[in-house]
Amino acid sequence: MSQPSWKTFAPAPAAKPFRLALVQMLGSKDKEYNLKHARELVLKAAKGEGKKSDVVVLPECFNSPYGVKYFPDYAERIDFELGKPYDVSRSPSKTVQALSAAAKEAGVWLIGGSMPEKDDEGLYNTAMVYNPSGDLVTIHRKVHLFDIDIPGKMTFKESEVLTGGKALTYFDTEFGRIGLGICYDIRFPEQAFIAAHQGCVIMIYPSAFNMTTGPMHWELLQRGRAVDNQMYVSMCSPARNLSADYHAWGHSMIVDPYGNIVGTTDENESIVYGDVDPQKIVDMRAGIPVQSQKRYDIYPNLTESAVTGQ
Amino acid sequence: MSQPSWKTFAPAPAAKPFRLALVQMLGSKDKEYNLKHARELVLKAAKGEGKKSDVVVLPECFNSPYGVKYFPDYAERIDFELGKPYDVSRSPSKTVQALSAAAKEAGVWLIGGSMPEKDDEGLYNTAMVYNPSGDLVTIHRKVHLFDIDIPGKMTFKESEVLTGGKALTYFDTEFGRIGLGICYDIRFPEQAFIAAHQGCVIMIYPSAFNMTTGPMHWELLQRGRAVDNQMYVSMCSPARNLSADYHAWGHSMIVDPYGNIVGTTDENESIVYGDVDPQKIVDMRAGIPVQSQKRYDIYPNLTESAVTGQ
Repeated sequence: MSQPSWKTFAPAPAAKPFRLALVQMLGSKDKEYNLKHARELVLKAAKGEGKKSDVVVLPECFNSPYGVKYFPDYAERIDFELGKPYDVSRSPSKTVQALSAAAKEAGVWLIGGSMPEKDDEGLYNTAMVYNPSGDLVTIHRKVHLFDIDIPGKMTFKESEVLTGGKALTYFDTEFGRIGLGICYDIRFPEQAFIAAHQGCVIMIYPSAFNMTTGPMHWELLQRGRAVDNQMYVSMCSPARNLSADYHAWGHSMIVDPYGNIVGTTDENESIVYGDVDPQKIVDMRAGIPVQSQKRYDIYPNLTESAVTGQ
Repeated sequence: MSQPSWKTFAPAPAAKPFRLALVQMLGSKDKEYNLKHARELVLKAAKGEGKKSDVVVLPECFNSPYGVKYFPDYAERIDFELGKPYDVSRSPSKTVQALSAAAKEAGVWLIGGSMPEKDDEGLYNTAMVYNPSGDLVTIHRKVHLFDIDIPGKMTFKESEVLTGGKALTYFDTEFGRIGLGICYDIRFPEQAFIAAHQGCVIMIYPSAFNMTTGPMHWELLQRGRAVDNQMYVSMCSPARNLSADYHAWGHSMIVDPYGNIVGTTDENESIVYGDVDPQKIVDMRAGIPVQSQKRYDIYPNLTESAVTGQ
């Protein structure tokens, strides 16, 4: 369990601009196809459009259909432990092996969306992070499970088969610190708030909102988290597959610290590009310095005892 | 200092629907005129358009121009102490006397915007609440002072002359519990979060965003607070006075727990009406039950030691 310093509410000192690419991939029920198609799109996203990308993101459950009935069958063991060496070549997960190879081939940081993961205790919805050498750097198990019931519109209960993660997650790159959540995690302000205090320049959420929650809250939640925490926020969705049980909202998005949309798209398969510039964080925090205006004499600072690390 | 119960994240049991009216008043430098005009508009707002209003709100600094150079001259003593009887007829504040009379005449709950207030220790930006009998029920001293510096666009420093309040504020009505903040307070998610846990059905902020922060964040902040806390949120602005030093954004607004805009307007003098329906809070919280899905094993519950009361 890593113990971050709460003394800063600023980008990590090493932060520098980077190019982010969101792969809004159209997946299928065929895992082999999904892995092959993901590789193609990661290579394309890395090349970019006139400008090479540094960090590439895949959507939530990119290698399986999204639905509790699919998770047990598609789940793979990863057996990753934070702080211990991990040998990808001996990974029990073919998805880990495929994404590691794709990250290395593309020469990018790869947030390998999420996938159903299993260990001896249960099933998880797990995001993976690979560095440009193909190392598996960290994983994030979705902390807040997607259990909602909007009558006549959308009912879903991940907790029927999944177990929530036990910690918040961030990782360090040569571009700065990046916070990681998955989809429904964004509804919980605490997570992004704590990430900002950890010095993260961006919260990235592989996600799959739907046709009910998407139009209502997809953009609002990202812009809200960005402005409240004066950091970048981004969600990467699957493309909408009308032959699937679950129709994803699409509209993958990158939002800057002022709440402006840097890049987005429609519901079709596409790649969204955007620049993440830590100077914008510095400027926003200097202009509207909420972080130094908090009234911790009146309400507590919730970063003081949060649990991070995998 | 009242000690609320944190055991609930639901509307107070007594909550029932009410009609809210926001008076987007065009103020002037003439306090006598402002008080007279406020009375006229409160009476008009109370009558409503086809439906009587229950709660009427005036904007921030409705009785004075908005600017640190004006606050000392316009400040009045109120000498209110929470929990002690307050005799309006002996109030040192002519604004309190005028608003008390207006609330009683109109037969409504009146959130008397805010005004510069003074006591032996300093100056405050203070909102006042009157019941339909004209009693001064509570006051809220702006907790988070508006100190921002966006170069070339907007610089303002309330803390040059004002002192921040020492507590968060709510009050009980026959329609349910109402949380009260002022303008810049809305940038601090903790305040609305705590109000929701206190059982407030709505956060109301007499406010005066400007031509820089208004287009950027006025709507976003209200919709964000509403969805995150699954409660109503409303900001009441002055009308834009182009002959004043400070140009208010206007666009007074009422937002429901789903983030939908129930009522709003442009920058001109007008009254915004909207219904506040606690059932919508119940439905939203049942559909997307984030309050019971919080992971307080991973991050703290910041409501546990907040300071409320005046």
